[in-house]
Amino acid sequence: MNNDDVIGLLAAVRKSRPLVHNITNFVVMDFTANALLALGAAPVMAHALEEVEEMATLAGALVLNLGTLSGVWVEAMFLAARAARKAGKPVILDPVGAGATRMRTQTARRFIESGLVNVVRGNISEILAVAGRPAKTRGVDSGAGASDAREVAAMFARSNRVVVSMTGEEDVVTNGWQIVSVRNGHVSMTRVTGTGCAASAITGAFCAVEGDALKAAAAALTVWGIAGELAARQNPRPGTYRTLLLDALDEVNAEHIRERARLAESGFVM
Amino acid sequence: MNNDDVIGLLAAVRKSRPLVHNITNFVVMDFTANALLALGAAPVMAHALEEVEEMATLAGALVLNLGTLSGVWVEAMFLAARAARKAGKPVILDPVGAGATRMRTQTARRFIESGLVNVVRGNISEILAVAGRPAKTRGVDSGAGASDAREVAAMFARSNRVVVSMTGEEDVVTNGWQIVSVRNGHVSMTRVTGTGCAASAITGAFCAVEGDALKAAAAALTVWGIAGELAARQNPRPGTYRTLLLDALDEVNAEHIRERARLAESGFVM
Amino acid sequence: MNNDDVIGLLAAVRKSRPLVHNITNFVVMDFTANALLALGAAPVMAHALEEVEEMATLAGALVLNLGTLSGVWVEAMFLAARAARKAGKPVILDPVGAGATRMRTQTARRFIESGLVNVVRGNISEILAVAGRPAKTRGVDSGAGASDAREVAAMFARSNRVVVSMTGEEDVVTNGWQIVSVRNGHVSMTRVTGTGCAASAITGAFCAVEGDALKAAAAALTVWGIAGELAARQNPRPGTYRTLLLDALDEVNAEHIRERARLAESGFVM
Repeated sequence: MNNDDVIGLLAAVRKSRPLVHNITNFVVMDFTANALLALGAAPVMAHALEEVEEMATLAGALVLNLGTLSGVWVEAMFLAARAARKAGKPVILDPVGAGATRMRTQTARRFIESGLVNVVRGNISEILAVAGRPAKTRGVDSGAGASDAREVAAMFARSNRVVVSMTGEEDVVTNGWQIVSVRNGHVSMTRVTGTGCAASAITGAFCAVEGDALKAAAAALTVWGIAGELAARQNPRPGTYRTLLLDALDEVNAEHIRERARLAESGFVM
Repeated sequence: MNNDDVIGLLAAVRKSRPLVHNITNFVVMDFTANALLALGAAPVMAHALEEVEEMATLAGALVLNLGTLSGVWVEAMFLAARAARKAGKPVILDPVGAGATRMRTQTARRFIESGLVNVVRGNISEILAVAGRPAKTRGVDSGAGASDAREVAAMFARSNRVVVSMTGEEDVVTNGWQIVSVRNGHVSMTRVTGTGCAASAITGAFCAVEGDALKAAAAALTVWGIAGELAARQNPRPGTYRTLLLDALDEVNAEHIRERARLAESGFVM
Repeated sequence: MNNDDVIGLLAAVRKSRPLVHNITNFVVMDFTANALLALGAAPVMAHALEEVEEMATLAGALVLNLGTLSGVWVEAMFLAARAARKAGKPVILDPVGAGATRMRTQTARRFIESGLVNVVRGNISEILAVAGRPAKTRGVDSGAGASDAREVAAMFARSNRVVVSMTGEEDVVTNGWQIVSVRNGHVSMTRVTGTGCAASAITGAFCAVEGDALKAAAAALTVWGIAGELAARQNPRPGTYRTLLLDALDEVNAEHIRERARLAESGFVM
């Protein structure tokens, strides 16, 4: 996994313009759709029980986000996930707020235990909560220490046969045997709602063009992190920064990746 | 239909500030409301079965958008449409994603066959799907060739007694006998989510002040298209462009319309 | 109530970063979350019956907003409000569109009569409608004359043991015995959707750090109003203004408050 992989995958996304089917939370739908468009992918949001299977089959990837979950939406997510699996399409789960309420933690676990999920993208406290090693989660924001999170993530990935994509100051992407760390991004991203959810949606776009979910997830976080850095060039306040994040997703190119990508791959020994 | 009609209708919208009742999708509610406010109209969103009839009666126009439809929302849309019809208020339908799933195509057709709709505003592939001449729809984006779309739109309008407002590189607005083409707009509009939905909402605002739906729909697309051009003056990237679109809706004036409007009217012979 | 109170409370919000649980309307969720983040608070949106009690207990304040209400959401709001009350957390009600439909007016009254609400934040026509003295409401926007609204608000606050926070050209915050008027803000705020809803959410953040709801509500409106003034410094159009509002919430500081706050406190004699 190196810079050229990221450059190649970004080009592939922009060339094939994959349709990403999102069943996501109400807060971030607009920002998520605009982030996918700015990246060069195509978003669709659909949650009706009557159509999610058809839409998931049509799309290149399915992104499930628990940010404002409710019973019937979770049901629709399962229907969509089964259809995506059947059609060989990757499924990304974003367990927003896992650890904050039992419903969120348990729903996230149900998805992972179902075997329908390819990538779990969350912040450290969400991943720890899903793995049964809860740090204290504060609403939907991250907070937990990163000390042993890396190890927990890798073991959780291995035992559940998923790729864990855990974002924080250092992002950790692991399938349980390999770990790719990504040190891109900017602290201002924590001042804008939906930047984590956008990371998951962008991961969906990359998974649609790359079968190795580890590689796809790491490339997605690298590109999004670099966009976060580009947007911060003029030290903007959060309203402007949110706008510049979308501009930067459109702007980010091979040269930016060569100059800025901070990827590191390592094996993991339990 | 000429530039002065557009100028007059824009002035009428800004003067009477019509309330536009939207039952629309979750992705674009914010952008739609801000677009209507920037134009000079007043938005309201309401979807509860208990109140949609009252709200539709109160408003100057009703805009139904199938972007994230579900069973109970469709039911509310029908209730609202019947109340609007009874009160003599125009109903605009945006069949987002028609052609992508059966539910969307069929729901759009049910609305049109009900006779409750005055204007159908969609992109080419959506209009073709609703008319039973499907191009391949890719999610919620347009894609189909425009070759015979113009003819299909006119025949569909005639046989269903609706105005079809079909947007694309060239917009085509037709009641089946007359066709108004509008060649305003900018390609950057396709990089921002909700610009099509905003076109429908703005059409609602113009229909609230002009009983001739052909004229109202064509004026709406002209104003929105010119706003898209004004926003593109500095060649912005998509995040900034989205912001400038709202600024431009506020800014667009008679002089812009005189300079930029590219309207053409013709009769249609089947 | 003076400028130093506002300065102290803003510092307290930024220091303790209270989690504000919003059950709010679909149109403004994004803007509300970003406004709370820009202010320095932490937003969470959750509406599922299964988790609202847990979330409301976890949060520092609960904000209920009727902007796109429906039956099951109202049920969730009541569950959350009871849990918040039990946990000693303040509850803010935003009766969006009260007066426009019976459902909205009646739901707002049910909440207030339940005794679960600490602060009612609405525009003049909404407050008059809830108080049974309807002006004509036009959708979700204010419109009514402010003549006797001040008196109605104070009497309503007194008889229902709530703080009424009524926004308009002059904001009036009253517990029925004391009245604080706030003359900050900018007319451009009426051109952006969700600025009233943001006022309610920000009120929630201040109530989370200050037990005197009158003081908290007045401080919130002062800070938000000053942000509205700062955002208007360059006379922007509405798209840009919306972005600058978030920037200004991040920027507003003690000096701005000392220079700009226009607070006045008075007693009220019935």
